[in-house]
Amino acid sequence: MLDKLKHITTFIFDVDGVLTDGNILVTENGEQWRTFNTKDGYAMQLAIKKGYNICVISGGTSQGILKRLNGLGINDIFLGIHHKKNIFDTYIKTKHLQPKEIVFVGDDVPDLAPMLQVGLAVCPADAVQEIKEISHYISPYKGGAGVARDIIEKILKIQDKWLDNNPDAGDGGKF
Amino acid sequence: MLDKLKHITTFIFDVDGVLTDGNILVTENGEQWRTFNTKDGYAMQLAIKKGYNICVISGGTSQGILKRLNGLGINDIFLGIHHKKNIFDTYIKTKHLQPKEIVFVGDDVPDLAPMLQVGLAVCPADAVQEIKEISHYISPYKGGAGVARDIIEKILKIQDKWLDNNPDAGDGGKF
Amino acid sequence: MLDKLKHITTFIFDVDGVLTDGNILVTENGEQWRTFNTKDGYAMQLAIKKGYNICVISGGTSQGILKRLNGLGINDIFLGIHHKKNIFDTYIKTKHLQPKEIVFVGDDVPDLAPMLQVGLAVCPADAVQEIKEISHYISPYKGGAGVARDIIEKILKIQDKWLDNNPDAGDGGKF
Amino acid sequence: MLDKLKHITTFIFDVDGVLTDGNILVTENGEQWRTFNTKDGYAMQLAIKKGYNICVISGGTSQGILKRLNGLGINDIFLGIHHKKNIFDTYIKTKHLQPKEIVFVGDDVPDLAPMLQVGLAVCPADAVQEIKEISHYISPYKGGAGVARDIIEKILKIQDKWLDNNPDAGDGGKF
Repeated sequence: MLDKLKHITTFIFDVDGVLTDGNILVTENGEQWRTFNTKDGYAMQLAIKKGYNICVISGGTSQGILKRLNGLGINDIFLGIHHKKNIFDTYIKTKHLQPKEIVFVGDDVPDLAPMLQVGLAVCPADAVQEIKEISHYISPYKGGAGVARDIIEKILKIQDKWLDNNPDAGDGGKF
Repeated sequence: MLDKLKHITTFIFDVDGVLTDGNILVTENGEQWRTFNTKDGYAMQLAIKKGYNICVISGGTSQGILKRLNGLGINDIFLGIHHKKNIFDTYIKTKHLQPKEIVFVGDDVPDLAPMLQVGLAVCPADAVQEIKEISHYISPYKGGAGVARDIIEKILKIQDKWLDNNPDAGDGGKF
Repeated sequence: MLDKLKHITTFIFDVDGVLTDGNILVTENGEQWRTFNTKDGYAMQLAIKKGYNICVISGGTSQGILKRLNGLGINDIFLGIHHKKNIFDTYIKTKHLQPKEIVFVGDDVPDLAPMLQVGLAVCPADAVQEIKEISHYISPYKGGAGVARDIIEKILKIQDKWLDNNPDAGDGGKF
Repeated sequence: MLDKLKHITTFIFDVDGVLTDGNILVTENGEQWRTFNTKDGYAMQLAIKKGYNICVISGGTSQGILKRLNGLGINDIFLGIHHKKNIFDTYIKTKHLQPKEIVFVGDDVPDLAPMLQVGLAVCPADAVQEIKEISHYISPYKGGAGVARDIIEKILKIQDKWLDNNPDAGDGGKF
């Protein structure tokens, strides 16, 4: 596990159940609003600043996802994706990435195929059984409750990129 | 119980306290917004694709319910229903359904009468006492936290319809 | 306690922390949206139909509170009330109520004065210490999670008004 | 600890993870809505009335924060602050405050620098490890679930400003 953490350059996240708790607030006209976590957000914006790739692949299509993630500095965002393996293959080819460089964080069946391809498969504590069984690391945090923060912090710390021993170093505000 | 699962062709769900946690967010102009679960949604759209009937009967009237469920491929939706037994009787007659084909998932007193008529009565872990007493199966999941996923997955698995041993088979995206 | 339940004709509820979990969702333009519970709602509309008085006294001023409660059939609603004792005194005088007829459900310091005046003072499991100390009954349910349902159901059952042994009797839909 | 409480005249709060649970509801057009706690609100408006300074420093920029806090009587609000130490230094200089007069309540890395400067550093039960390690007091309450109420109540009680033995004294309504 420790060895796997050292090679990571790229984070790929599912949205529902990973960056959120899996709940969707549906408005009267059918918009789907999601709830994001600021501790996750702090870690994500810091990882971007430190030069890591962050990619998000979701079956959802709401503009709210895009706006939230853009605000954190994330631009590799693929929404409305029903077959995640295809877009995953295209992404790693375009970026010239090796499997051992990639951590994929997913929680449900549509995440299964790409999670089988990466060096480090991670899931939240409340992922479905099929995903838990193939994950290298099951975070103690649930979806939307810090699983992204947990894995980013672990990787940046082992690579000496977390705060650089300077409390203000990563201080880019919360999101 | 296992035998009951084998005959199911039709899922009937209450909304508040079953597909949601029973909470309603009330806007300043009185709209009632509900929160739905993506793990439930994944199972519901898969069941529809596999040919099962999914019917929803709710006392609520919000258009948000309709839009969310339509998005999952569900069209048999009855809102603003105060006497669920009547609409239930009409529905099973129109669809030529036998009681043993039907699972009804409810959590509160208005669900009692139709739940007494079906082959398999199911409730979430936080249903009221009157409903727990007449349920054949009390899910370990609370309303809005996976009770629909739990019962759909159980039935599709026992009927060999869950993912067909192909991780991508049910990959219709999350909702 | 059982004896106290028998004399109740009138329910008075605080809103924040009693009919809700105490949280307020603040919109970009400063509106305050609250989340209500459908199991509470079922009990409240039933109590109204059975002829009980339900009165709500809140420091909040949002129209959402009014619209939600009106939808349940509740019309004795006092919002923006900073000194609850005054409006409480006026209400019981106008309605010619005796203290022993009244249950007041509150959770925080502004509820203290009227709770000291009623026959039955009730609070949710997560009320503040000052309120717990003067309550006759501390519900096992938290605010917004069924405390109103709990006390209404207890009182209607002991007075033989809960469902009349007819599952459809109270079936006025959920709210 | 008790001695530290006696000297406090000024409360400084972070927002995300302190006055909220750290979650942000993102609307379709990218607005970020937060959920605040009424028990916290009661304590904050009371502290203002009793003459304490309350200052809020947040990386967030939403107008909802401003409107919520203004409604409680709080006017020293600094939003969009990425380097909290700078604004903290300016604030205490302008107000002529000594470190021992100040309690700072924070939960994450951006709060670290100013928390090292104050007489009393406080964090919620779910703060990150770096913050817990430098806090003088870790509240048993999580962010958004009463940590502000907890510390305000403790300080006002030890300074004999909490309710003045008069239940109606602080009765300025809930927020």
